[in-house]
Amino acid sequence: MKKYLIVGGVAGGASTAARLRRLSEEDKIIMFERGPHVSFSNCCLPYHLSGVVEDADSLVLMCPEKFLKQYEIEARVNNEVLSIDRENKEVAVKDLLTGEVYKESYDKLILSPGAKPIVPNIPGIENVNVFTIRNVVDIEKLNNFVKSNGIKNVSVIGGGFIGVEAAENLKEAGYNVTLIEAMPQIMKPFDYDMVQILHKELYDNDVNLIVGDKVSSFEKDTVVLESGKKVQAEAVVMAIGVLPETELAVKAGLELGETGAIKVDQNYRTNDKDIYAVGDAIEVYNALTNSMTKLPLAGPAQKQARAVADHIHGKNVLNKGFIGSSVIKVFNYNAASTGLNEGLIKALNMNISYDIVYIIPGDKVGLMPGCEQVHFKLIYEVPTGRILGAQAIGKGNVDKRIDVIATAIKFGATVEDLRDLELCYAPPFGTAKDVVNFAGYVASNLLNDSFRQVRVSSVRELVESGACIIDVREKDEYEQSHIVGAMNLPLSEIRNRLDEIPKDRPVYLHCRSGQRSYNAVLALQHLGFENVYNISGGFLGISFYEYFNDKTMNRKMIVTDYNFE
Amino acid sequence: MKKYLIVGGVAGGASTAARLRRLSEEDKIIMFERGPHVSFSNCCLPYHLSGVVEDADSLVLMCPEKFLKQYEIEARVNNEVLSIDRENKEVAVKDLLTGEVYKESYDKLILSPGAKPIVPNIPGIENVNVFTIRNVVDIEKLNNFVKSNGIKNVSVIGGGFIGVEAAENLKEAGYNVTLIEAMPQIMKPFDYDMVQILHKELYDNDVNLIVGDKVSSFEKDTVVLESGKKVQAEAVVMAIGVLPETELAVKAGLELGETGAIKVDQNYRTNDKDIYAVGDAIEVYNALTNSMTKLPLAGPAQKQARAVADHIHGKNVLNKGFIGSSVIKVFNYNAASTGLNEGLIKALNMNISYDIVYIIPGDKVGLMPGCEQVHFKLIYEVPTGRILGAQAIGKGNVDKRIDVIATAIKFGATVEDLRDLELCYAPPFGTAKDVVNFAGYVASNLLNDSFRQVRVSSVRELVESGACIIDVREKDEYEQSHIVGAMNLPLSEIRNRLDEIPKDRPVYLHCRSGQRSYNAVLALQHLGFENVYNISGGFLGISFYEYFNDKTMNRKMIVTDYNFE
Repeated sequence: MKKYLIVGGVAGGASTAARLRRLSEEDKIIMFERGPHVSFSNCCLPYHLSGVVEDADSLVLMCPEKFLKQYEIEARVNNEVLSIDRENKEVAVKDLLTGEVYKESYDKLILSPGAKPIVPNIPGIENVNVFTIRNVVDIEKLNNFVKSNGIKNVSVIGGGFIGVEAAENLKEAGYNVTLIEAMPQIMKPFDYDMVQILHKELYDNDVNLIVGDKVSSFEKDTVVLESGKKVQAEAVVMAIGVLPETELAVKAGLELGETGAIKVDQNYRTNDKDIYAVGDAIEVYNALTNSMTKLPLAGPAQKQARAVADHIHGKNVLNKGFIGSSVIKVFNYNAASTGLNEGLIKALNMNISYDIVYIIPGDKVGLMPGCEQVHFKLIYEVPTGRILGAQAIGKGNVDKRIDVIATAIKFGATVEDLRDLELCYAPPFGTAKDVVNFAGYVASNLLNDSFRQVRVSSVRELVESGACIIDVREKDEYEQSHIVGAMNLPLSEIRNRLDEIPKDRPVYLHCRSGQRSYNAVLALQHLGFENVYNISGGFLGISFYEYFNDKTMNRKMIVTDYNFE
Repeated sequence: MKKYLIVGGVAGGASTAARLRRLSEEDKIIMFERGPHVSFSNCCLPYHLSGVVEDADSLVLMCPEKFLKQYEIEARVNNEVLSIDRENKEVAVKDLLTGEVYKESYDKLILSPGAKPIVPNIPGIENVNVFTIRNVVDIEKLNNFVKSNGIKNVSVIGGGFIGVEAAENLKEAGYNVTLIEAMPQIMKPFDYDMVQILHKELYDNDVNLIVGDKVSSFEKDTVVLESGKKVQAEAVVMAIGVLPETELAVKAGLELGETGAIKVDQNYRTNDKDIYAVGDAIEVYNALTNSMTKLPLAGPAQKQARAVADHIHGKNVLNKGFIGSSVIKVFNYNAASTGLNEGLIKALNMNISYDIVYIIPGDKVGLMPGCEQVHFKLIYEVPTGRILGAQAIGKGNVDKRIDVIATAIKFGATVEDLRDLELCYAPPFGTAKDVVNFAGYVASNLLNDSFRQVRVSSVRELVESGACIIDVREKDEYEQSHIVGAMNLPLSEIRNRLDEIPKDRPVYLHCRSGQRSYNAVLALQHLGFENVYNISGGFLGISFYEYFNDKTMNRKMIVTDYNFE
């Protein structure tokens, strides 16, 4: 009989415990949790604020009694592990209800302490009611406070997953919500061109979104920003990020990695071979950046937990590293991403040559009810075509497309491989040439130098510099709304109006989504025009990209009034 | 300047034409279509019957005028290619409106004639109004007939994609619909254990589903079956299958393959190197069965079209063969499949050793609104673990999971690879351990001999032979409904009631979906029980599997009355 102690009873800890039990019936397994609950759904916490998850108790998936009865796992809640005596292989534990401190020995110790919300010591922080969202107690505290105090104005600080989900769910509950992000954009898994859609959606749903402005201090029920702006807030949710819980590990002399999280080897062992660590407290190997990273997500935590239990039982599990896949719902939009994005490539100063595809096909056959556009961005290595990452945002099934890319990346796929994928097709589910196939085609064409493109992000500069922009949509589409100064030459007329197109300078073509203009670009090239570019993302992409900037930066519109409905 | 002629103007033909134009501006491209429309959405045709696609005109995506103006492609509708003069490289064409016959020369000829619905010469066929569904004219004819003649009863013969979609859409339109399938099951891409869910759904939605019974003759507005059963039907839709249109090819001396479809090489060329063929009329290489097969699906047709245009222009495209992925909506259920299934393995007498996983997890976090079960079946090779195919049926996002498997198969993935996939997770979209990861875990466990399982299809025999079946669900679940004769030993009590479990004969454990019983099976094994089996698919799987048989075969229920709501 062996004795396994586990510190932390949520995703990583509980999964390790359950797998350890399945691998052996005789071992003693004890899980310590400082808080009153084990095995709660931390990812569902924000949904309690809106009532989507009405009963806070339901957030707790397994109680200690059930752990004991079903799995013979002792889950000691309200028990905090204070220290580790590595030499004698025992921990000191404090029962937080009785105050008693006791010792427990181990054969193997697994640390899954998680990460804690960062609450910076901003001047005047005592003037506001500050909340964080980490566990069931936190979310009940916040929910009860705003409900029972007649709160009207809530500020959420930090535009990551938890911040955005909290903002949405508070808004759904009827509060005036301000979401404040110091960086120029929310949601780092998305590039600036893609995230504009989410900025717009928050804005359109009446969330007072402020980006590129930092909290400088607090006054009575008020957030003061560096710009001087003041925001009333009877409650403030701090969601600027999390820090790995490393205190226990550091005190025990366990090594931390370069990211500040607990350092583990390929089998999730710390520098003490009898102590493993998993979950938000550790750093993992990113298989695309080839560097260590913090990846505080539930999916990886569960994979690590299983690998640890297997390793303890002598089963080899190859550690292939992580690429990071995630998804979020933002009101009516779904936004998913996997692998690298341009922001990350730049932030890490990665020495990698890449290009992107930005397409906006339908997520199903246009005739079907509920057909929605998918804004899809693919990032791939040049010249190899190796897929590095993708982002998809739309009202429909975007996660499906990103899951396919995430799978392809795991196998080192290239953009050519995407063309061959046979994905499920019937009109209510997709198109015969799926979004993913389509992206593969476009990327292959770019790699083969069939055509050249510019980004939606460069259109403003083109407009301001008086470049020749040709809108190849039909006349009625052009008349509804168009780029200021763009010439209308419908694809259906372009071959007969070649003399209207300048040959002495570059011309930039666009249609609605980039499909017709791609055909026009190829036709012009074949007809002897040498300096032709497709505007990837098309008019739709440009409109989304510019909308939020127009509204918040008071920049002059480069598009005549576009109706997003 | 080259001249390309294309026979057939739907998926394969129109895609070839468009791609040919994108690759060259100067070539002449003519597309011949016997019917009045090119580029219509044949996959959407059944949806006109219910009014989901209300306007039949909208089924036509591109008119000849638009082809000409936007792509300089001549689309000659109502023009039938009568014969091919291979020596002189020209075709004889009949203008069906004027009756004129003319010749047209080609440099390359592309055949995309499609496949035609089979209408067998059943005795008395003149006594009923027979319809088929191939094009817009067909669907309008059927729709107008049933609407304007006060039709009440429609029989659909054949339970493939078109038959099932026609039955559903006719039912939605308010008709009494009988769906007749000669084989014991509808929808061959699904195995019998999975398709029972669709049988049940059709039955529950008041479609009079008859399987395992063949049409023997027709009487006045009546279908007569081999069983003697008679079904009133003022309209009969023939959807028993399609036959490749090979007449033109055969007359020209082009070779057919072993399946009876047009034989093509790896670049989709026929035995005449100037004549290509694509789409439903050809046979393709199945990369999993390593044999030629007919695959009348729109996705593969489009891929072939692009490959043909590229090959004509000297671009090499590797033909990786096909695996076949598809999806269908059946009332409230979505059903997707990819690769091999057990039925196909048996039908082809494939010499392959395989096992299956059948799990029923939620498609998202249980706390989220709209969480639905996914019935998921994975088929993999033993001992290699190579993935051969998968099927998923449920009310939620099942196509996502099958697309991931379809992608994994393309890369030769094993079940171990599924464990590592990092799929998008947030509570509204999935679970931290996704359906696909979960299936990978179970399959790995089976390959590692961690436990053994039996199928839902063998439970009836176990019950009838008096085998020891243990239901490890909690008492209240057991009391609501259980397998006749099963013993209730909840997982939470099983370790204290070991003496109630026989050691001298096999015991079969199940819970609701197979998850808790798996834990119980492992616990019992560790505790010295050697003959323990998990019933994969659990009580849910058994209930679905038995329901339809119980209703239609008058077999005595092996489950006490289960409420599927």
